[in-house]
Amino acid sequence: VASRFVAFGELLLRLDPRGHDRLVQAEEFRARYTGAEANVAVSLACFGRDAAVVSRVPDHEIRQACVNYLRRFGVDVGGVVRGGDRLGIVYVETGASQRPSRVVYDRTGTSLREARPEEFDWDRLLTGRDWFHFSGTAPALGPNVQAVLKDALRAARRLGLTVSCDANYRSKLWGPEEAGRVLGDLLEEVDAFIGGAEDAEKVFGIRPPPGASPAEFRVEAAAVLRRRFGLRHVAMTIRGGDSASEGRLAGFIADGAGAWESREYEMEIVDRIGGGDAFTAGIVHGLLAGWEPSRTVEFAAAAACLKHSVPGDFNLVTAEEVEALVAGRGGSRVVR
Amino acid sequence: VASRFVAFGELLLRLDPRGHDRLVQAEEFRARYTGAEANVAVSLACFGRDAAVVSRVPDHEIRQACVNYLRRFGVDVGGVVRGGDRLGIVYVETGASQRPSRVVYDRTGTSLREARPEEFDWDRLLTGRDWFHFSGTAPALGPNVQAVLKDALRAARRLGLTVSCDANYRSKLWGPEEAGRVLGDLLEEVDAFIGGAEDAEKVFGIRPPPGASPAEFRVEAAAVLRRRFGLRHVAMTIRGGDSASEGRLAGFIADGAGAWESREYEMEIVDRIGGGDAFTAGIVHGLLAGWEPSRTVEFAAAAACLKHSVPGDFNLVTAEEVEALVAGRGGSRVVR
Amino acid sequence: VASRFVAFGELLLRLDPRGHDRLVQAEEFRARYTGAEANVAVSLACFGRDAAVVSRVPDHEIRQACVNYLRRFGVDVGGVVRGGDRLGIVYVETGASQRPSRVVYDRTGTSLREARPEEFDWDRLLTGRDWFHFSGTAPALGPNVQAVLKDALRAARRLGLTVSCDANYRSKLWGPEEAGRVLGDLLEEVDAFIGGAEDAEKVFGIRPPPGASPAEFRVEAAAVLRRRFGLRHVAMTIRGGDSASEGRLAGFIADGAGAWESREYEMEIVDRIGGGDAFTAGIVHGLLAGWEPSRTVEFAAAAACLKHSVPGDFNLVTAEEVEALVAGRGGSRVVR
Amino acid sequence: VASRFVAFGELLLRLDPRGHDRLVQAEEFRARYTGAEANVAVSLACFGRDAAVVSRVPDHEIRQACVNYLRRFGVDVGGVVRGGDRLGIVYVETGASQRPSRVVYDRTGTSLREARPEEFDWDRLLTGRDWFHFSGTAPALGPNVQAVLKDALRAARRLGLTVSCDANYRSKLWGPEEAGRVLGDLLEEVDAFIGGAEDAEKVFGIRPPPGASPAEFRVEAAAVLRRRFGLRHVAMTIRGGDSASEGRLAGFIADGAGAWESREYEMEIVDRIGGGDAFTAGIVHGLLAGWEPSRTVEFAAAAACLKHSVPGDFNLVTAEEVEALVAGRGGSRVVR
Amino acid sequence: VASRFVAFGELLLRLDPRGHDRLVQAEEFRARYTGAEANVAVSLACFGRDAAVVSRVPDHEIRQACVNYLRRFGVDVGGVVRGGDRLGIVYVETGASQRPSRVVYDRTGTSLREARPEEFDWDRLLTGRDWFHFSGTAPALGPNVQAVLKDALRAARRLGLTVSCDANYRSKLWGPEEAGRVLGDLLEEVDAFIGGAEDAEKVFGIRPPPGASPAEFRVEAAAVLRRRFGLRHVAMTIRGGDSASEGRLAGFIADGAGAWESREYEMEIVDRIGGGDAFTAGIVHGLLAGWEPSRTVEFAAAAACLKHSVPGDFNLVTAEEVEALVAGRGGSRVVR
Amino acid sequence: VASRFVAFGELLLRLDPRGHDRLVQAEEFRARYTGAEANVAVSLACFGRDAAVVSRVPDHEIRQACVNYLRRFGVDVGGVVRGGDRLGIVYVETGASQRPSRVVYDRTGTSLREARPEEFDWDRLLTGRDWFHFSGTAPALGPNVQAVLKDALRAARRLGLTVSCDANYRSKLWGPEEAGRVLGDLLEEVDAFIGGAEDAEKVFGIRPPPGASPAEFRVEAAAVLRRRFGLRHVAMTIRGGDSASEGRLAGFIADGAGAWESREYEMEIVDRIGGGDAFTAGIVHGLLAGWEPSRTVEFAAAAACLKHSVPGDFNLVTAEEVEALVAGRGGSRVVR
Repeated sequence: VASRFVAFGELLLRLDPRGHDRLVQAEEFRARYTGAEANVAVSLACFGRDAAVVSRVPDHEIRQACVNYLRRFGVDVGGVVRGGDRLGIVYVETGASQRPSRVVYDRTGTSLREARPEEFDWDRLLTGRDWFHFSGTAPALGPNVQAVLKDALRAARRLGLTVSCDANYRSKLWGPEEAGRVLGDLLEEVDAFIGGAEDAEKVFGIRPPPGASPAEFRVEAAAVLRRRFGLRHVAMTIRGGDSASEGRLAGFIADGAGAWESREYEMEIVDRIGGGDAFTAGIVHGLLAGWEPSRTVEFAAAAACLKHSVPGDFNLVTAEEVEALVAGRGGSRVVR
Repeated sequence: VASRFVAFGELLLRLDPRGHDRLVQAEEFRARYTGAEANVAVSLACFGRDAAVVSRVPDHEIRQACVNYLRRFGVDVGGVVRGGDRLGIVYVETGASQRPSRVVYDRTGTSLREARPEEFDWDRLLTGRDWFHFSGTAPALGPNVQAVLKDALRAARRLGLTVSCDANYRSKLWGPEEAGRVLGDLLEEVDAFIGGAEDAEKVFGIRPPPGASPAEFRVEAAAVLRRRFGLRHVAMTIRGGDSASEGRLAGFIADGAGAWESREYEMEIVDRIGGGDAFTAGIVHGLLAGWEPSRTVEFAAAAACLKHSVPGDFNLVTAEEVEALVAGRGGSRVVR
Repeated sequence: VASRFVAFGELLLRLDPRGHDRLVQAEEFRARYTGAEANVAVSLACFGRDAAVVSRVPDHEIRQACVNYLRRFGVDVGGVVRGGDRLGIVYVETGASQRPSRVVYDRTGTSLREARPEEFDWDRLLTGRDWFHFSGTAPALGPNVQAVLKDALRAARRLGLTVSCDANYRSKLWGPEEAGRVLGDLLEEVDAFIGGAEDAEKVFGIRPPPGASPAEFRVEAAAVLRRRFGLRHVAMTIRGGDSASEGRLAGFIADGAGAWESREYEMEIVDRIGGGDAFTAGIVHGLLAGWEPSRTVEFAAAAACLKHSVPGDFNLVTAEEVEALVAGRGGSRVVR
Repeated sequence: VASRFVAFGELLLRLDPRGHDRLVQAEEFRARYTGAEANVAVSLACFGRDAAVVSRVPDHEIRQACVNYLRRFGVDVGGVVRGGDRLGIVYVETGASQRPSRVVYDRTGTSLREARPEEFDWDRLLTGRDWFHFSGTAPALGPNVQAVLKDALRAARRLGLTVSCDANYRSKLWGPEEAGRVLGDLLEEVDAFIGGAEDAEKVFGIRPPPGASPAEFRVEAAAVLRRRFGLRHVAMTIRGGDSASEGRLAGFIADGAGAWESREYEMEIVDRIGGGDAFTAGIVHGLLAGWEPSRTVEFAAAAACLKHSVPGDFNLVTAEEVEALVAGRGGSRVVR
Repeated sequence: VASRFVAFGELLLRLDPRGHDRLVQAEEFRARYTGAEANVAVSLACFGRDAAVVSRVPDHEIRQACVNYLRRFGVDVGGVVRGGDRLGIVYVETGASQRPSRVVYDRTGTSLREARPEEFDWDRLLTGRDWFHFSGTAPALGPNVQAVLKDALRAARRLGLTVSCDANYRSKLWGPEEAGRVLGDLLEEVDAFIGGAEDAEKVFGIRPPPGASPAEFRVEAAAVLRRRFGLRHVAMTIRGGDSASEGRLAGFIADGAGAWESREYEMEIVDRIGGGDAFTAGIVHGLLAGWEPSRTVEFAAAAACLKHSVPGDFNLVTAEEVEALVAGRGGSRVVR
Repeated sequence: VASRFVAFGELLLRLDPRGHDRLVQAEEFRARYTGAEANVAVSLACFGRDAAVVSRVPDHEIRQACVNYLRRFGVDVGGVVRGGDRLGIVYVETGASQRPSRVVYDRTGTSLREARPEEFDWDRLLTGRDWFHFSGTAPALGPNVQAVLKDALRAARRLGLTVSCDANYRSKLWGPEEAGRVLGDLLEEVDAFIGGAEDAEKVFGIRPPPGASPAEFRVEAAAVLRRRFGLRHVAMTIRGGDSASEGRLAGFIADGAGAWESREYEMEIVDRIGGGDAFTAGIVHGLLAGWEPSRTVEFAAAAACLKHSVPGDFNLVTAEEVEALVAGRGGSRVVR
């Protein structure tokens, strides 16, 4: 069986000090591999879907470790091209209470930044697949990746894949104007867009109507985005709380027929990173399954909630576990 | 001095991934030895009582590690017989927030399952002792263990020991009908029974009276159980909450003179496994000391509460620490 | 540039079992070096100040490890004298929920206890510096250290340094009468005093006026202390909560012009030890900077709050991070 | 591309205490998954070949962890059937110097032991593949596995695969007579046999000719085995030394045209387990490539030698690394 | 059954950096409890003998951890008295190759140093036992311990126990003259003495005869010691080699009938500490069993050899494992 | 006191899998900071000398961790400039026996590569200092670093510092012709050159005279180098052995008066990386002390030998420890 979901984006080595140690105390790092788009692929593989990652990594031992790490969780890595000098690194310091988590990027000069369009045979990579996904951190890597991505979107359109994009705006990678311009171009080819209300405001200049509540602004922002870029679905995570140890999370989705919010979860947080990617995977899972938007957003919010309990970026939970949470079976019982 | 408390049951190797890792991520396991009844014995040893464990384990290096582990915490292991092929294993994944903890059993073909009655000289094992304890997970291992247990109960009766049983119903080990029938037989020889209200309903078919509150049902279920099996004491833990990280706990006890509930504790949970065994140890400790039921149940609930703060199955707290919590000295101060 | 802040006190090796393990379970200890006064110095070094520690440690490999540990975090260790037999040890068991954290001291016969005044050339050590700090655990070590401290205070006065003292009363080290008498003598030379309301009552016999609220007693106790010892500033931490995992914290400061309380923080606690020292460092930082008392106490309370999120005794946070919390940027966002 | 190499055998969880700790000291285990035949498959995958494993494991979280572990190193796990109760366990204590390494098996009642022939569709599993491999530890698991294996061998013959068998005699699993009888039957369908001279003597009753040197006996034993079972190739490892920390290793191969020995390696040993499987993989690699026997046995011996430097059962080295050792580039230089 | 072997001496916490790290690099310590005499008792318990330890430790959590650690390996700790301020500490840095292992003692002010004779009821402690053992590091702790020891020796004599002493001379604890005088006194009551030839020379002033080989000096020194102190047995370890990673070891014993040397072992060293205590345990084991001196010394040397392969001070090997080495079954095979 | 030794070069984060794990197996990395020149500085600081490092690192948390790591071991980091994007990384896989150690560099786009000459005020950095050191890996980073270095050498000459250079040729960083040309230019300003005979041949085209032994070629190569570049001292390490676990090492030095070789050490290797830097530090230490060349080279060889026993790049040994090895006190004794 061919893989049905394909994600394109950068792969990185994630290094964490142990427990709540600060980077300046660290004598050892836990090593895991990640990437906004790879996280979505791994999550979908855990839900039982065929999922593949396309990327570019240097040809040495660390590449092999990275590729193996994805393969271990069931992702097809046949589309990971070899070349360039380095794998990017992300150092993650896990905060607690009033101390926020910190992420230090070391992403200059990475292999993907220097990718050339001719290295990726998108017709081969996308044939027989149903869904293509990328996030804003990919085009933020510069003109090379943007060119690769445009090829990919053209091929996806030609081959009839559904396309999703997670805004994933990072001010360390690019400014809001450039992000708005580049993402705006790409969104023309996108069906499902995932991005928070602040991104809508900061990157696309959509202002909350005077006196609008946050919920009203979400509906309005989604409508504007849908109109402006011809999107079918717009989804968002809704986060609350003021602590690195605890938080609240819900999901939102809108399409031509309406807008839906999921229930809100109060969470104790083991690892915050990757929550948005887990939400995206939930949305893709529901849309691929043809579920109602309300079911889709409940599933995605529950998936994102569970991610916060799993160490690392990958949401290593099954679809059954997500469904159990949607059905109200919380964490207090011991599953024996 | 001879040991005063004797527990009979299976010993297991418990393997935990580190921190909140899922089993599928685990590259290493922390190794500890456990068993529902051994947990009670260790807890009583920590309270300063003589406590012994009777069981059957295979004759190889892992047996020695298991026996040493109990010995370390002061339990008499002279009654642990050698034989059979294997020590059972329990994998424990510690959940968080909405993700429940998971326990995977590997208990087929274990040494205790294949025990033969003639391997246990109960007259020798119980002489000079005051209390005999087992839990429902022992007879759930099948006819061999049930036969051993009947011998034990006969000897206990003959030698005048008090007998306690913790229902400890596990649907992975046996069905409710078989459990009800076998446990019902054994309870004829039991003085103190520990078991939750759901067990009473599921295993012994005791239905809540129409419109009864949970508290009223507890009193009623205890009364029915006492009458049906001629029990002197019935005790239960009362649990609340909907998170793997936080929960509420109180205790209940009933005898011929009345029924008592302890105060309720709100807990942040380090390790949930073994809380019931810690409660049982508290009940046995109070009854052996001849305390009032109200004092006994407060002690048992405080003991169970503290267990949730200790990694592993063993409730490694002293009686003084439990008394301090009963007296209202909570966790906020630093003991220097 | 010469160091501006100098602290005098004992250095210790801190040994922690991993996670929430009890000491009786520990198979390994994390090793860190600490000391009430060194903690203040490290915190000020992290705020960007020159900070030095004066102490006495034995001349062997563990000394080198200790000195290196301070040096690593930017503290000047040129005033750490070599001599005596041993470095004291403090075992720290991290509690959870209703189980309090426990500290076991092994501080008999330490190098500092046997220090001789002629080993410390205070004129050299204090020249060019602005602030001298000690805590009550130093004179609690006995007459030798008291004599050293008197020399230090005389030199500090002569050279025009501001002097601070944190009461840090520990009943395991000395009784309240001796503490009151010895500290009382030393406070004659002190400008800024940090100590809780209970210390004021227990050590200095200051009774709460009948019917006074805790807040009123704080103001009153500070006034009495200021009058009795001619102090310029009196500061206190205000703690609340009843769990080892969560708590509340605020700060208080009073001087001739009035009394101020900071906002109160609700914290999830990673490591409680060193919170008071972090508060002291915040107070010293503000007073050295010539800030208003209200700004000083807000900074100190936020610093103490953040300390509870950092493993170990050292408050490894920058002044910018403290200011961010004062400005209301809590822990929920990820700093990228 | 379809997988070309298929191995059938049991999968196990391997648990090691850390470093040179004895099992009785172990507080934690490193967790890895293994299996004599899976080890060969992983090694071939590291050499760049398509490799698949067929086995049977229980359907729970530990299964997923096991399957993921193989997948990570590039092995196709599509042929791993779900069923039965348990994954076998092997505890490995790494010896040193005069203290031998110890292996404790917990392999009763495992999923593969209870496999049923109809669970394996060998036509599908072997179509498009070139080589089938099993070792003596598979039929040692009893009649069920023997029946499955006979089906497999019939299909392999029908589909034209080359078949290899590693004797892998373990006295804990079966006696020499039974092993001789059962293996003898199976060897009728085998092309390449790997097994030591002692196995030949103990299991197949081949006695060294009077006065024969070990080298002469190897040649003779290989000739007898080839004649008796119609084998094309017989290969053996030759081990020397008397320490758990150091040893000597060479390889031997014989076919119709002659017999060859490789150079002998003096090794310092990091992990001895899996050396034979690494040798087998080297032999299969050479025969699949159509190399001369002398080149094949040099490659296999160098591969087995390198395995002793890699922690765990898997020989995680590339074909280039093996070739470099064959070419005489030893371990002293640093590869930068 | 009452314990048959009793050892008296100090208990210590041993702290090791991980692997070959230097103390100055250490961020964590592995924690184990030890003591020259306790090491002998644990070794005998592993050989299947009843063994007890008498000592004095402070009454806090670290005491409980220490006592538990001994209990775990089967030693009777009923004779460990509570009192005093501290447990001594020994930091162990494991060397390699040309870098020697280093031991840093922190043994001032320990509980045993301040023991009072009336705290030990030797009649009760020694009744029903057969053998009493101490080493030179006990009387080296000063007059209190010497007084306790004299009481013990008087009781041992009165109750008919055999007495052994291991010289264990440590220049950090006392000088050679004091050691010679105090040990000389105590040896009057000793039957079996274990001590190297250099100790004989340094502490007891026995000079090698001109031109004597080391072997001749051993025989001569043993003869002089036997005559001077009325000893029945004198045993020694013979060590060779010039590396922290590798070494040679043999044993020597002499009595009235002659002198015997064991075979010499070439060892790769995992942990050198405790080798002498393991040898002593082997000697005691053989003498208690009534073996010939030649068998006793072979057993003791093999036991000491195996100790070098076990991490920590305890020789966690069984008598069967020692016998296997005596019988020539070295470390190269894997025991399955 | 001002620092006397100054080194200039790149700082890197070194990441090691644990034990002998391969990079492809690694789940965690030990984190240490290093750099060829920093290693020399740390070694000299451990010998008791003032030592400083000049470099350029990015301004984020990983910089602070790096700077702290050097500071911890006593190096003056006042000359480490902030700027640029990234700290280079070096992954180190520790080989064993026939498997060589592997180093994977990730050094593209590092902060030092993009340094600008005006960022370094060499007059200030070198005033009051005696010795300046760099290695070939610095100019290998490109024209920016070469320009900085030329400024440094001019200032060093002007201020009268002695200058040393370690060839440290790495083919991954530059080719032999470029290295020869650039290094040749720089060597005009160098007094002491450290570099192997192969470097002399490969980089500077010095051919061994026909029939010359390796020792004769060393003398000849040193003479040619001294003449060609006007060097005062030429030193080399001489390595032997063919295993990653064991090796041989000696030192060589030549000046106008002759040539000397040290004794040769047979080593068991804990960590090979940094041996050359330790040798360089030994040479600098001896030359700074004004020792005879024979004493200098013996000290440097012993220092390099000891480095192989210490984990990490830093040679954390004292001058006394090196002298003890020179004096023949090897590793077999335990230093207590």
